[in-house]
Amino acid sequence: MKIALAQLNPTIGDLQNNAQSILEIAQQVASQGVKLLLTPELSLCGYPPRDLLLNTHFIADMEQTLNQLAIDLPSDLSVLIGLATPNLNSTITGSKPLFNSIALVTAGKVQNIFHKRLLPTYDVFDENRYFAAGSEANWFILDGIKIGLTVCEDLWNDRDFWGKRSYLVNPIEELAKQNIALSINLSASPYSVGKQQVREAMLKHTAIKYDRAVLYVNQVGANDDLIFDGCSLGFDRSGELVCRGKSFDRDLIIIEFDETKQDLNLDKIQPLNDSTDAEIWQALVLGVRDYVQKCGFQKVILGLSGGIDSALVAAIAAAAIGADKVWGVLMPSPYSSEHSVTDAIDLAANLGIHTETIPIGELMQGFDRTLDSLFTGTEFGLAEENIQSRIRGNLLMAISNKFGHLLLSTGNKSEMAVGYCTLYGDMNGGLAVIADVPKMRVFSICNWLNREREIISQNIITKPPSAELKPGQVDQDSLPPYEVLDAILEAIVCNHQSAEQLIDRGYEPQVVEKIIKLIKRAEFKRRQAPPGLKITDRAFGTGWRMPIASK
Amino acid sequence: MKIALAQLNPTIGDLQNNAQSILEIAQQVASQGVKLLLTPELSLCGYPPRDLLLNTHFIADMEQTLNQLAIDLPSDLSVLIGLATPNLNSTITGSKPLFNSIALVTAGKVQNIFHKRLLPTYDVFDENRYFAAGSEANWFILDGIKIGLTVCEDLWNDRDFWGKRSYLVNPIEELAKQNIALSINLSASPYSVGKQQVREAMLKHTAIKYDRAVLYVNQVGANDDLIFDGCSLGFDRSGELVCRGKSFDRDLIIIEFDETKQDLNLDKIQPLNDSTDAEIWQALVLGVRDYVQKCGFQKVILGLSGGIDSALVAAIAAAAIGADKVWGVLMPSPYSSEHSVTDAIDLAANLGIHTETIPIGELMQGFDRTLDSLFTGTEFGLAEENIQSRIRGNLLMAISNKFGHLLLSTGNKSEMAVGYCTLYGDMNGGLAVIADVPKMRVFSICNWLNREREIISQNIITKPPSAELKPGQVDQDSLPPYEVLDAILEAIVCNHQSAEQLIDRGYEPQVVEKIIKLIKRAEFKRRQAPPGLKITDRAFGTGWRMPIASK
Repeated sequence: MKIALAQLNPTIGDLQNNAQSILEIAQQVASQGVKLLLTPELSLCGYPPRDLLLNTHFIADMEQTLNQLAIDLPSDLSVLIGLATPNLNSTITGSKPLFNSIALVTAGKVQNIFHKRLLPTYDVFDENRYFAAGSEANWFILDGIKIGLTVCEDLWNDRDFWGKRSYLVNPIEELAKQNIALSINLSASPYSVGKQQVREAMLKHTAIKYDRAVLYVNQVGANDDLIFDGCSLGFDRSGELVCRGKSFDRDLIIIEFDETKQDLNLDKIQPLNDSTDAEIWQALVLGVRDYVQKCGFQKVILGLSGGIDSALVAAIAAAAIGADKVWGVLMPSPYSSEHSVTDAIDLAANLGIHTETIPIGELMQGFDRTLDSLFTGTEFGLAEENIQSRIRGNLLMAISNKFGHLLLSTGNKSEMAVGYCTLYGDMNGGLAVIADVPKMRVFSICNWLNREREIISQNIITKPPSAELKPGQVDQDSLPPYEVLDAILEAIVCNHQSAEQLIDRGYEPQVVEKIIKLIKRAEFKRRQAPPGLKITDRAFGTGWRMPIASK
Repeated sequence: MKIALAQLNPTIGDLQNNAQSILEIAQQVASQGVKLLLTPELSLCGYPPRDLLLNTHFIADMEQTLNQLAIDLPSDLSVLIGLATPNLNSTITGSKPLFNSIALVTAGKVQNIFHKRLLPTYDVFDENRYFAAGSEANWFILDGIKIGLTVCEDLWNDRDFWGKRSYLVNPIEELAKQNIALSINLSASPYSVGKQQVREAMLKHTAIKYDRAVLYVNQVGANDDLIFDGCSLGFDRSGELVCRGKSFDRDLIIIEFDETKQDLNLDKIQPLNDSTDAEIWQALVLGVRDYVQKCGFQKVILGLSGGIDSALVAAIAAAAIGADKVWGVLMPSPYSSEHSVTDAIDLAANLGIHTETIPIGELMQGFDRTLDSLFTGTEFGLAEENIQSRIRGNLLMAISNKFGHLLLSTGNKSEMAVGYCTLYGDMNGGLAVIADVPKMRVFSICNWLNREREIISQNIITKPPSAELKPGQVDQDSLPPYEVLDAILEAIVCNHQSAEQLIDRGYEPQVVEKIIKLIKRAEFKRRQAPPGLKITDRAFGTGWRMPIASK
């Protein structure tokens, strides 16, 4: 039996176009003799639909779209489609009003509706907010083959693999007892560094443990802060990888399930990225491209400071939507070094992006004069530094508003963590492209990017990072070296370590205490930051929920 | 038996000081012959602790603080203290690693730990993110009296009262079967308009239905966007109100449980506010005061436009922390009307707040000149309007940064809904005071405020609302009248109604479609807004989780 895995890139809530994408692929594969088409979790509305799910008319529209799609689909093809469906017993059983469901559509009709059983409610996931858990093992028989069905998280609770349970039930185990011939998992699993390796190990383990072939289809594309990497997979019953979809791109895999062997035949295996830097680069390029397109922008702008962060973001943007659609804006001040301007101009030339140069000295003087009487007798300090950054932020937004281009912000995760950024200044933008990329990783991605030719000049990479908001300023005046900072930040932010644990590991108590204080104090800035593309297990985004007024 | 209800105002995460507050009250009531002291849900760490709960060292610190407190507390007093405790079976049962617990402390020891059973996971609540649900009915015997214990949401699932179940179990019903003599509920129930009426009706219903007296202790104080109103309650077994704590203030109630009657005796009943306007006013005053104090600020600043929104926020701030600690900043432009300045000055004089006047005309010209070549041939529009707003935002932040005062933002809910506000401009601030107050309610609160003497002049209240970002501009140029706008917004934002439903109710299709489009388009602005004090069932804050890139 031929099975197709459609690695789709839906737009959240865009039911008509998402349905159209499914229809087009269905028509294509039906003509190739495919019997079963798989689409990702919630493929009709896209993942995550978030509070759109609270609108009952949205749920009704989804059902209507599914019913129309069922009529339109080729009648000799079975299709699995993800959507939210009403939980009709909700008010009697006291459970949430929706299910995260998969519809099995064949011959013009919805033949069956299956419900996701394990509902992730941690990090960026809020599924218990919306969904009731399905209580039955999900399977169906097609052409005499008994197929078990799980949805994303359903697969992620094997106690042997994880050494612990995260949920009481294990849907995969229950399906194995049902004597299924093939296991299918429909997912919308967001990207983070190293996650694909975990998925492959877990799927391999599952295949071997239950002696069943397993197919996994993942959503691809970015929705706000979340990037879905695709990389759909198949493992045969001996645990050998038999297919892998493209990473960070749409794909369609057609694979043969051999009924005699009760196993999948070997198919095409797309390579993974050969380095973490390459992988993150691809993720961010997709993140920018999809945010721009799904929000309906044509072009982007960003401030080019001559520093490494804006250089990387400019390169990502150029790769995402084309250099001709990227505007770099240079806004030198009297504190800007000569090389800031030349480095930025050189970079723009390397990338082939348009630049504008708007000196801000006069506006700085204007603010000085305007605030002169009020600030009399005070010393130049943070307030004056921030004024500069906010003048730039205002200019960038003015250009964004005037021409309708999306402003990208360029701060990295290390800065966001310690608040080394100006709210309403350099933090301005619709999307924070590298907000989840630690500074040391910024360096290494830039070096990777230069592997064939120098795109980001060595000068930009090697000069001491500086905000250039006062003469001679460099980041390391007020922060520990980035090697140290990033290691401490990872321990605190991602691994929930305490000051004591870090000090035990040999870090200086003063440095640790200072960083903890800075992280806490910057919470109000992060709360007002634009969405930032998530690439780590713990980003400062929808999955970071910290109080501000706290001790 | 004398029972004390401590309506406490904890600071999130401030274990030492929160414990100290409990200790002081315990010492006070022990000397008055009280046998049992009740404190709110999570009284040790404050509610909601949010992702602080993910730090295992925070959980360990909490346990340690509890153990020390147990030793320090008067040994003849029993105290119920709220804290998060580890779920030791988490990895075996596949449940979350914590419980939302209540410790019963007597005679220097933790005698028992009870676990919350119903975990709200909707709106601003994320309890399934952190907590496993307790599975047993919670009760204990003190001086021969069997006392049933529930935690906040545990009380909110009576099918007779609500006409539906929201959870499978009903802890109150289970406790009634245990033949308890008295029901105690420890809560951290956030304020919203009309909620106290619901609580009182529900508690009355519970008392009558089970023929048991019931005591309810609520947290008071504001934590970021959430305001807790206190208003702790007691109902006797016939459903009569026997005590009510203060609203929006700390309080201590000592009430007698008569062992012969097996009922509560009548005690002091604090009045509720006599109008919704008064109630919201009190809520916002507390919200500002607590945010300022808990974040460690001394003073606040805000832009005074001469309009009604900033007038109300200035009045709230003056009431919250004292007029001498409020700075109003006037930033007139060439488009500002004469009355803007005089109205703002009059208001400041009425309130007794300090003002600064900083004209922005020169800076506007500076931006015009700076952007002249780039903007050549374009018409004056939104970009130029926003520049003005962002100049003001920059000046306000400069003053905030220079003197360390908290900037309050002044936008109302109607503006936030349709995006009639400038990101990085008038949206700037650490706290958005009236971000959940619809414009029509702003008018009515101002009129209420003037009930004895004119604080906000009639001129401010009656003049047509205007952003004054271009000559002759008024809000109603681009928005429907606020009566209409607010009604439509409430239907869409709070009641999840669709365009069809609104059109069926008689609203003009064009107006409805326009507003829906504006709401959707402003999502990126709201994502970057400061925390806004929540006063309605559905605010644009932590409980509003909408995708940006969507259709």
